[in-house]
Amino acid sequence: MINRQHLLDLDDWSPEEILRLLDRAGHMRALLAEPSKKLDTLRGHLLVNLFYENSTRTRVSFELAGKKLGAEVTNVAASASSVTKGESLLDTVRTLLALGADILVVRHSSSGVPDFISRHLPANAHVINAGDGWHAHPSQALLDLYTLRSQLGSVSGRRIVILGDILHSRVARSNVWSLTAMGAEVILCGPPTLLPEGAPTLYCQHPVPGTGAVRRVVAEPRIHEALRGADAIMVLRLQKERQQTGLLPSLREYSARYCLTRARLQEAHVGAPVLHPGPMNEGVEIDPQVAQGEQSVIEEQVTNGVAIRMALLELLAGGRGEVA
Amino acid sequence: MINRQHLLDLDDWSPEEILRLLDRAGHMRALLAEPSKKLDTLRGHLLVNLFYENSTRTRVSFELAGKKLGAEVTNVAASASSVTKGESLLDTVRTLLALGADILVVRHSSSGVPDFISRHLPANAHVINAGDGWHAHPSQALLDLYTLRSQLGSVSGRRIVILGDILHSRVARSNVWSLTAMGAEVILCGPPTLLPEGAPTLYCQHPVPGTGAVRRVVAEPRIHEALRGADAIMVLRLQKERQQTGLLPSLREYSARYCLTRARLQEAHVGAPVLHPGPMNEGVEIDPQVAQGEQSVIEEQVTNGVAIRMALLELLAGGRGEVA
Amino acid sequence: MINRQHLLDLDDWSPEEILRLLDRAGHMRALLAEPSKKLDTLRGHLLVNLFYENSTRTRVSFELAGKKLGAEVTNVAASASSVTKGESLLDTVRTLLALGADILVVRHSSSGVPDFISRHLPANAHVINAGDGWHAHPSQALLDLYTLRSQLGSVSGRRIVILGDILHSRVARSNVWSLTAMGAEVILCGPPTLLPEGAPTLYCQHPVPGTGAVRRVVAEPRIHEALRGADAIMVLRLQKERQQTGLLPSLREYSARYCLTRARLQEAHVGAPVLHPGPMNEGVEIDPQVAQGEQSVIEEQVTNGVAIRMALLELLAGGRGEVA
Repeated sequence: MINRQHLLDLDDWSPEEILRLLDRAGHMRALLAEPSKKLDTLRGHLLVNLFYENSTRTRVSFELAGKKLGAEVTNVAASASSVTKGESLLDTVRTLLALGADILVVRHSSSGVPDFISRHLPANAHVINAGDGWHAHPSQALLDLYTLRSQLGSVSGRRIVILGDILHSRVARSNVWSLTAMGAEVILCGPPTLLPEGAPTLYCQHPVPGTGAVRRVVAEPRIHEALRGADAIMVLRLQKERQQTGLLPSLREYSARYCLTRARLQEAHVGAPVLHPGPMNEGVEIDPQVAQGEQSVIEEQVTNGVAIRMALLELLAGGRGEVA
Repeated sequence: MINRQHLLDLDDWSPEEILRLLDRAGHMRALLAEPSKKLDTLRGHLLVNLFYENSTRTRVSFELAGKKLGAEVTNVAASASSVTKGESLLDTVRTLLALGADILVVRHSSSGVPDFISRHLPANAHVINAGDGWHAHPSQALLDLYTLRSQLGSVSGRRIVILGDILHSRVARSNVWSLTAMGAEVILCGPPTLLPEGAPTLYCQHPVPGTGAVRRVVAEPRIHEALRGADAIMVLRLQKERQQTGLLPSLREYSARYCLTRARLQEAHVGAPVLHPGPMNEGVEIDPQVAQGEQSVIEEQVTNGVAIRMALLELLAGGRGEVA
Repeated sequence: MINRQHLLDLDDWSPEEILRLLDRAGHMRALLAEPSKKLDTLRGHLLVNLFYENSTRTRVSFELAGKKLGAEVTNVAASASSVTKGESLLDTVRTLLALGADILVVRHSSSGVPDFISRHLPANAHVINAGDGWHAHPSQALLDLYTLRSQLGSVSGRRIVILGDILHSRVARSNVWSLTAMGAEVILCGPPTLLPEGAPTLYCQHPVPGTGAVRRVVAEPRIHEALRGADAIMVLRLQKERQQTGLLPSLREYSARYCLTRARLQEAHVGAPVLHPGPMNEGVEIDPQVAQGEQSVIEEQVTNGVAIRMALLELLAGGRGEVA
């Protein structure tokens, strides 16, 4: 029943759609264990990583996923391109399409750019949001969900804490959609200045597609309250540059109050997995002992990311409206 | 009868040579419609995009053309390379050859660099000028010609206007050679300070190779006179940085007098195609309504560019002295 | 007998090991003469060029070597990556491994980085030092040795001069290990301020693995004394930025006293090959007439570099513990 052209965010994804994608990603994960195998699902397709912000892991992840499926892949770092010559975003996109691109993986510091692009694409071209401003990072949320399910079996009824600078986090926003769609309760935890006002209400006003279920989201600035009985913790990267905005106390104070330490992790359920989208500021938002500890599934996330992106690329561009 | 090692400019190309190349590009254009097909014409060849100036479209266009023909392609952005360590141009070239490169696609801000390189290459290595200073951009001119012919049938006897900053434009210079070789009359239109003095005379002193025909070029600073009866208009990118040279009035004044608007386009023949080499400054040298209008063939140009470059690569390096 | 996981430096390589690798590189060199041939030795492997310093020749050399052996290759320029976001080196490495990388080719301005990385890799992942600080550049030393042997037959008993800024040169350091292991006498020549104090003693305290032979290294600041009777001269790149350290007189004075000119080259044996790791500052450390002269084997070095790196990659990651 999945028949999508683009991936912009996960707010309109039903649990059924999500599950089918994760299931397909499971097959891709198995395929990754055989490095010399390649598919030809995307043979003849041209994937362009159009990155207006730097990134190693996301760019390489899509690059490898595309190549593994047989696509041609090229990288356009927008800072080193015609973009610096004042060309409009849309002209860049039109040029890439005219060059033969049919899959655009876009990262941009402004929210809404992938959505804007999607409105100007022909039916056989696809845009994937690889992170836009504070808005969304849906492939990250899908790989997080995949990782959580491989640890917890199911996230339904589970208490998942997202910890850190919620306000500026596109990772948090997309995760709320997918986690709540799958029946998890999401606890947003961070300094009050970094918790978006009215977030829980906002999400609750958008029931889950397909099921109509109400999303369960609460904000909890007290870290002990938040972590108590948590089934998993997703730590967010603290954007150090936010400090200048006045929303954040000193890094030292932030760390003293919100760094995920081993002591704090004890509040959670035994063995609760710890996730982080990377890159980490170890010692700021996460203690190195936790980051490298046995509950950390951070590297698992990265590997799962390639599998998720393969499943996504197949879904959007691989001519499989039905992911069976 | 084409037997060339390099592509530096088009001043010495005969109409026959040009036609054969365009004809071959037509085959390549058809091939592009089958994205999963690849040729092995350049198997075992190594194409290096050696770009001393940033570019998205030209770099990606050559990259895709090379890969489509089976070449290995690697990109060397000179600003991020040994060049910044003070290595001489020629040492960089010698190093690339020693690494196995046999096709160098070179863009440089100084006129004459590709020519200089060509004098130091062995017989089995090739340089393609992908834009040098104000001098030449021959693959652009060839794709422009291909696009014009696909619109007009033939350019012979046609009135082709090149509009904008002629003085600093390598695109204009190369286009004059190829368009006049094919019998078109070229009207150079722009502010008097941006029209190279004596340009028409200069071109007319170099008759067309093979036929001996006199090239027809006129300069016309009055835009209405220039556009009247035009069969096609090629709009040039206005290099905003030229403003500081004193040759250019304010952008606003430039735009008021020379921007190609819908009203001005009415002076030309009905349906006259509008070209632009990109990237565009919409609202400066071209009105968005024209750029996106139905007479615009700007995206066509980009796609044709891949086909032209495939034909060029095959011609120079593919072991086909005769493009039959 | 070679069974190595990483290449960090050559201090612990025995002559036997070195010879086997060079022998294998000879096969690879022959293979390079057939550009359309590829091996599948590294099929399913992912090589990442993780470069914290810019480089054209070394990066492209490893890229081509990897592709020629069938590996997937991707480049991560650390300045344009997550590294700028403050991610720790080790997290970057863990991320690349989780993405599927199993060969990391690392260049870094700090000595010891590849060694540090090697201590955190699983048994099936490999790090190759592509230059770290002033410490080592072993693949360069191996290609230098290969080039010398192809010129001289054997380096045993030969007098090899390394000329220039020895103090800051990782190329010099690695070359001393490999050249002395093969029985050459190494003359370190440069301004006294740029000769590491006690270098000869240091090297002599580490006998050659496998044979126990004492390494023969002398420092000689007088260029005429050094060059007299030399069998080969390796000129080092002068890092112009060292001038600010006070260790170096003006470039003009350096050049007057240590530039390898044709006159100075006459002191060496007739036909003694001249090497340079590139990129060159012609007119500073080497005269253009020497760099382009008939004793120069500088381009040979570059081509041999691809072959050496192919042999290295095969040795470390190609599942051939025995290079037969």
